[in-house]
Amino acid sequence: MLSSRSPRIVVIGGGTGTFTVLTGLKEYTNKLTAVVSMADSGGSTGVLRDEFGVLPPGDVRRALLALSSQEEQTTLRKLFDYRFMRGNGLSGHSFGNLFLTALSEITGSQVKAIREAGRLLNISGKVLPVTTIDTHLVARLEDGTLIRGETNIDIRLVRPDLKILDVFLSPKASLYKPVATEINKADLVVIGPGDLYTSVIPNLLVEGLSEALSKTSAKVVYVCNIMNKHGETDGFSASMFVGEINKYVGKNVLSAVIVNEGGFPKRLLKKYAKTEKAYPVRADLKNLGNQVQVISGDFTTGGTLLRHDPGKLAKAILRVLGN
Amino acid sequence: MLSSRSPRIVVIGGGTGTFTVLTGLKEYTNKLTAVVSMADSGGSTGVLRDEFGVLPPGDVRRALLALSSQEEQTTLRKLFDYRFMRGNGLSGHSFGNLFLTALSEITGSQVKAIREAGRLLNISGKVLPVTTIDTHLVARLEDGTLIRGETNIDIRLVRPDLKILDVFLSPKASLYKPVATEINKADLVVIGPGDLYTSVIPNLLVEGLSEALSKTSAKVVYVCNIMNKHGETDGFSASMFVGEINKYVGKNVLSAVIVNEGGFPKRLLKKYAKTEKAYPVRADLKNLGNQVQVISGDFTTGGTLLRHDPGKLAKAILRVLGN
Repeated sequence: MLSSRSPRIVVIGGGTGTFTVLTGLKEYTNKLTAVVSMADSGGSTGVLRDEFGVLPPGDVRRALLALSSQEEQTTLRKLFDYRFMRGNGLSGHSFGNLFLTALSEITGSQVKAIREAGRLLNISGKVLPVTTIDTHLVARLEDGTLIRGETNIDIRLVRPDLKILDVFLSPKASLYKPVATEINKADLVVIGPGDLYTSVIPNLLVEGLSEALSKTSAKVVYVCNIMNKHGETDGFSASMFVGEINKYVGKNVLSAVIVNEGGFPKRLLKKYAKTEKAYPVRADLKNLGNQVQVISGDFTTGGTLLRHDPGKLAKAILRVLGN
Repeated sequence: MLSSRSPRIVVIGGGTGTFTVLTGLKEYTNKLTAVVSMADSGGSTGVLRDEFGVLPPGDVRRALLALSSQEEQTTLRKLFDYRFMRGNGLSGHSFGNLFLTALSEITGSQVKAIREAGRLLNISGKVLPVTTIDTHLVARLEDGTLIRGETNIDIRLVRPDLKILDVFLSPKASLYKPVATEINKADLVVIGPGDLYTSVIPNLLVEGLSEALSKTSAKVVYVCNIMNKHGETDGFSASMFVGEINKYVGKNVLSAVIVNEGGFPKRLLKKYAKTEKAYPVRADLKNLGNQVQVISGDFTTGGTLLRHDPGKLAKAILRVLGN
């Protein structure tokens, strides 16, 4: 399926959603660029960020893993995915994060570290940070309260009943130039899926990104989440997700939206409601209007999680290119 | 200089002395096996040993580095040699040690971890642990006091004025079988240089090693230290080192001894005396008798440390084979 005519695709996001998109698309193209959010501040990543002042390695690590060859370099791949479960000060650290941190110290640059790690892992494609500015995400709630730090917004202990009014970066951050170049050359840009305010929008907040998206001749597709997240998008429908994306990238930028319909076994819905207070995103297709192409269907994996299937999702994404 | 007729050489030790021997010899042969002590318990290695129950990675790491290709895989080599200087719980840890620890957890075996690391670092030769038994070094001082743990013997806080009477392993440890095979096939076995009681003899204490050394047709050469170490070998001459080695391997096992003579700039002698209470090993060649070949000369590097030069030492070692 890979050929010299494989499409150039830029995937923007972070977290497991982007991992899924990359895993699916790499079967169809070797011209993939993963652009990852630099606002992550939780867990192993947050600790390393505080202590080494490096950009957060977590989403970079996941994108590198998704693009790494699964046949070759298996040991290095396993190491990259390994997490220490014991050891004072080591427990909880992802080895891949330590790898990227040590590489950053040796090369003197996070960007060089990502490139070197990609080379060692023999990845097909590129991983680029959306910005190289050390910045943090801030959310403003509907009562005006500010929550600083991606992980504090992600794991909402402060008034999870209050809606997020908007999010911004502090300090402001500018686009890492090679990202603009890749978007400019692309045939397709994929945004999401992923936590709306903590994984997807932090990329869109970077100054220069929405400009790059509005200038490119590439089609821009947004993959809407399957499930809502408590404290972040409670009660959101597909058109509300799209409305928020449009708020940050500007109207008329999205060419297409991918919306999941169905594929919800009752027992899983019960489990998600009970353990995570999470409910499906309503596929209100009629509210999406006629300005964007809407691709809907059951894109779930089956199994014990309500997640996108990499293969089904990749096929849906490629339909935007008419393939 | 490498050919299919390159000699099979087994190097026994641990620490920087073995690093020097391997670095020098790898220019002359691609049939090198490094056998490293498993009694190390200090620093990063000691912490990982306590917390993960893995065999001590420190000497393994140094041997792998010595045998790794310096041209290729430069990044991985640098990573392996990198030490975290910041980070709560990370500071002081060698990345190479964390690498070996994570590999041990993934592969379920230290031996497999060493093999995999060797493959990734593209080493020429093999690194083998002298034993796979989790054991510790114990020193008995002349007043009967027992000091447990390699690092406590190495950094003597307990009565550094008292001589070490003998050392033993607790619990007893048996030889890792492939070491016996390599010694049996070897043309030459090199013991040392290195701290006598904490780096070199811990190997000789492993049950089965002296038997393997007495059975092999290989020549066995001992490289005597250049400087004495305070609290460990104060006032030792070359023949006293050889006497201690003979005590553990049995008489008539050594074929040759390499003894440094000269190469001591006055300012360096002053510095060593002042900062480390360390003085040169006296080259009492006449006390070494006629049973062993004695190779003496100035094998020092020059520069700011009193150490063996890898190239000079390798040439001296190969003289034992008549090369």
